[in-house]
Order: sequence, then structure tokens, then C-alpha cells
Amino acid sequence: MTIAKIAESAGVSVSTVSKVLNGRADVSPATRSRVEELISEQGYRRRRSSKRTSSPTIDLVFHELDSAWSIEIIRGVEQAARAAGLRVVLSSSGGQQSPEDAWIGSVLAHRSTAAILVLSNLSPEQHEQLATRGIPFVVIDPNGDPGDGVPSVGATNWNGGLAATRHLIALGHERISVIGGPKQFLCSRARVDGFRSALESAGLEADPALVQEGDFSVGSGHDRAEELLSIEDPPTAIFAGNDLQAMGVYEAARESGVRIPEDLSVVGFDDLPTARWVGPPLTTVRQPLVEMAEEATRLALSLSRGERPANLRLDLATDLVVRQSTAVPRSG
Amino acid sequence: MTIAKIAESAGVSVSTVSKVLNGRADVSPATRSRVEELISEQGYRRRRSSKRTSSPTIDLVFHELDSAWSIEIIRGVEQAARAAGLRVVLSSSGGQQSPEDAWIGSVLAHRSTAAILVLSNLSPEQHEQLATRGIPFVVIDPNGDPGDGVPSVGATNWNGGLAATRHLIALGHERISVIGGPKQFLCSRARVDGFRSALESAGLEADPALVQEGDFSVGSGHDRAEELLSIEDPPTAIFAGNDLQAMGVYEAARESGVRIPEDLSVVGFDDLPTARWVGPPLTTVRQPLVEMAEEATRLALSLSRGERPANLRLDLATDLVVRQSTAVPRSG
Repeated sequence: MTIAKIAESAGVSVSTVSKVLNGRADVSPATRSRVEELISEQGYRRRRSSKRTSSPTIDLVFHELDSAWSIEIIRGVEQAARAAGLRVVLSSSGGQQSPEDAWIGSVLAHRSTAAILVLSNLSPEQHEQLATRGIPFVVIDPNGDPGDGVPSVGATNWNGGLAATRHLIALGHERISVIGGPKQFLCSRARVDGFRSALESAGLEADPALVQEGDFSVGSGHDRAEELLSIEDPPTAIFAGNDLQAMGVYEAARESGVRIPEDLSVVGFDDLPTARWVGPPLTTVRQPLVEMAEEATRLALSLSRGERPANLRLDLATDLVVRQSTAVPRSG
Repeated sequence: MTIAKIAESAGVSVSTVSKVLNGRADVSPATRSRVEELISEQGYRRRRSSKRTSSPTIDLVFHELDSAWSIEIIRGVEQAARAAGLRVVLSSSGGQQSPEDAWIGSVLAHRSTAAILVLSNLSPEQHEQLATRGIPFVVIDPNGDPGDGVPSVGATNWNGGLAATRHLIALGHERISVIGGPKQFLCSRARVDGFRSALESAGLEADPALVQEGDFSVGSGHDRAEELLSIEDPPTAIFAGNDLQAMGVYEAARESGVRIPEDLSVVGFDDLPTARWVGPPLTTVRQPLVEMAEEATRLALSLSRGERPANLRLDLATDLVVRQSTAVPRSG
């Protein structure tokens, strides 16, 4: 399949097809979509030039840049890209789950070597556009829902939830609460399922009143903890779902005069830098974000060289980090 | 001054001069430096093409990516760059105060529109290389020492130190300690000077035993606070120099059973997200990092258009954020 053939079938000039392939803006939408369709139907794949440009780039796209763990991912991608001699082009999709079309145009025009997306899912059309131009992409996915067949790197959320809960059970806790994140995040469901499995396999029952849902923010951790601490038979331990919710639990405990860990044990998830600095330092499940970002970059570069890695989905192991927010429960 | 003239003076071909201008690697070091010298002596300035490439970029270079406020700066630059239709190319100089020469080569080869440096000072040669190619740069400088004549954006560190200390004095504190950062950072000197001026203008004397120096880390805040809390007549308030040192002060206070704010008031500097999450939430001096990064980007773009802004140095105002770590001292 050549560009000339596509031009002929579409009834446009070769230079117009070339413009579409290069993400140029000066093509009418109707022409663009006709050409896109033919490219896709007829299976045209641009050959990656073996001679790289003098300064190849990798695109890193965030859903939002304000998450507390963005910087960890940036560090990982930057390190792996630097080791491979690539520059990192950073952008954010401004809070939208899919990047804007302008972004795709820019990646195409720039002929990026590969793209790394954080929580940003491409539309099927965008997926196709990158594929036809031979630009591979990998999703870094701390939240757990990359879509079928999409190369992605995540963490073992279920195992992390299990480990957090087992730690509390081993300390002697029986009234253990969980504050999950939003249900639409698979990572949150996995953590809560790990929590349930740990209880069940220890012969404990999960009291429905102790299973709460937040939105992964400090505020929701605070509000759910405030409710939990005011019930008649409050929990002696809370698995907070993530570190931000754990900060909210700390705040609610302070307000109620509940001491951590003497009266209440708390476990987070993520191991943000903050976890070490709070009082008392937070026991939490470490998500290896820097390593996840490095792996994603290596996977993307491997795909860009035309290799076929055995696994297109990698889940890196989480790690329980025991600090001072967990202790044996006060004897009732 | 034309490229042909430079080539003639240097005794090399026009294409060799062009390679030097474009940061290409295939020129011998001796030839490169001869050409560089001539370019610099004879005042050649590449005309910026008025027609931009399809996807112009701005370079953002960090000294290190692991500082807690890196993400704030990235957000600011990304927002301002996106608004201007530019992509952000991110790199780190891997802990060195000046970026590696490979970075300069890459900026030249890429013809970036402008560069933003965070705590990374260019060597005079690198400065000259960028200048001859018409690539302006701005230093974002939370630490206060960009060098003479270098376009830069910072914050009003002295005023911040003054405001923090005045707040403590207004609450009734008289034994107030400061933990500064490293003396070689002008920002730290400015904060400590603001502290001294606040005391003096209130008719209080700074007890030399209460003026301590840390290295802006949690650990040094902890160690200095541990010492301060164990002296015979300990301070009733500590201005911790930055938020990380304030976290260390919190830890030392916890270990000694000193309650914040009942027994000890604490003020930080920066307003990292952590400041809101710790217990009790930290009173601190906000450094407007996102706005500083936006201003730096606008300044760089203005320079890239050949404009001559009235000010090449902007200090954005800091802001005292009063939370719950400061209170009136216990009556002695």
C-alpha cells in the first residue's frame, strides 16, 4: 500500500495524504476523515525511518498534573528516556480523560518515538491514528482501567489491599474498616476486594457498616472517618484506600481526640512523600510509581523498535511499609 | 555578519558553521570552539524565523526532579505554554547545578523557542551559545541566586520571613527561633533577615542561641528542633525556614511530648500540599510557584518575540497562610 494509491482512491493529491499523515491542520475535516478511513481500511503503515532525527522525543500525557504522584511518574519517565537518549515532551489533557485532538496532531507532526499516557484513554480514532503512523503508546495506570489490549503498566492493587488488611489482623484488630475510592476506578475495587479476602481468610466478617466509599480526596477521608468514629461500636483500625484519605482520617481523629495508633490504627496506600512526614508517620502500601514509569517507557521504546514483548500488561508489586500509625488494639 | 563570512574567517566550509549553529555532534571540538568564538566576537545573531515550525517547544530544565515543589512549577509552565500553543520539553540535569552540554546540543538542534531553567545555572559558554542562536532563557528561582543580568522570576523571601515572624510577635511570642536553610542560598538569607528585622522593629532581640541553620530537609528541621527544645529556656515559637523543616520540627515536638500549637507555635515557608494535611495544619508562607512558573514562561516567550520587557527580574509576592499550628503562647 503506497501513499499514491491512497491518494488515488481518495481522489486527492499525494501531498494532501502526506499532510494528513503528518498531522497538519490545513486539510478539511471531510478530506481528513476520508483519507483516515482509507489508510485504516487498506492497512497502510508508515515505515518508521531507521535514521532517527537528531533529537527524538517521547510524549508524556497526563490527565491532570495536580495529583500528588505526578512528579514520581515524571521522574521515572525522564530517567528512562534520558538513558535512551530521548527528550520528554510533557502535556496535560486539562482534566479530560482523553487527550485533545490537537495533541494527536502535535504528536503526529513531531513524529514522537512513542507516547506514555497517564490516566488518559485514547479514543478509538486516536488509537488508530497513532497506529497507522507507527507511534506506539503505553498507559501508566495507577487507577487500573486501561482498556482491552492496550499496553499498560499498573500495580498489584488487590495484593496491596490484602497485605494492608493482613497487617492489621496480625496486630489483633477485628473491627477493621475500609474507605475505598470511587467505584469506577478498578484499582479501588481491587483494593477493597483484597481487604475482604484478608478478612474472610482470617475467619472475620466484614461489617457492611465499616465498608465506606470516598473519592480519594483528603476531604472524603475526613468525612467517612468522622462518621465511622461516631458509631456505637467504632472500628479500631481503618484501611484508608489511599494516602490522601488517610490524611483525612488523621484530621478526623485529631478533631475527636482519638489518638493514632493508641486508639486507632491507620493504613494508607501509595506512599506519597507526605506519608513519612505526618504525625505519626503513616503505615502504607507503597506503589512503585517511579519504577512503573520506567517500565512503561522501556515497554514503549521496545514497541517502537518493532519488538513484540511477551507481556503487554505489567503489574509491579506493591510493598507494605510499616511505620508508626499501626499498633495492637487497646484491649476492649 | 553572515555565515559565509564566519566560515571564511574560520577557514571552514559554510556547512560546518551551519552544523555548529544547529548543535550537530559531527564537528571536531577544536573547529567548534573556533567557530563559536568567531560567532561570539563578530556578533552574529541568527534571525529567528518568523514562520514557526508546526510544533514549537519550550525547554524546561530542572536541577533535580525530586523536590516537593517541582510539580507546581511544571504545572505553571505547562499551562502557560499550552495557552501559547507550545509543547513543553522536560529534562533534568541530574543533580548538577548546570545542565550538561548534551542538553545545549539538543536545544540547539531542536530550535526551542525558549528555555526555562529551575535552579540550573548556565555556564557563560552555554549562555553565549543560546544567545547567538536567539534562544532566550529565564531562570525560575525559588532559591534566590540567578546571577547578574539573568532574566529570572522569584518570590519575596525577605517579606515572607518578615510576615511569618510578625505573625508570631502579634500572637505574643517573644522567645522566637528561626531555622534557616543553607547559607549559600540567598532565599534562605533573605528569610532569616526578614525574621531579624521583624524582631528588631518590635523592639525584641534575636537570641543567637535561637538562630539555627539547617539544610532545608525534614531531618535537619528535626535535629535543630530537638536541640532547641532541650535548652534551658526553649523558644515558644519556631519559624522553620521551609515546610520540610517544619515537618521535622513537628516530629521532634511529638517525640518530646511538646504539643503544637499549645506548647509551641510553628510557621513554615512554601505552602506545599503537605502543609494542609499535617496535624495540626501548618501556618506557612505561601510561595506562588504556579504563578512564578507562568510568569517565567510568559517572560521567556516575550523575549523570544524580540520584545524588551521593562523588568528582567520579577519577585512575586508571598502570602502568609494562617492555619492551626500557631497560637498565643502559654503564659509563662
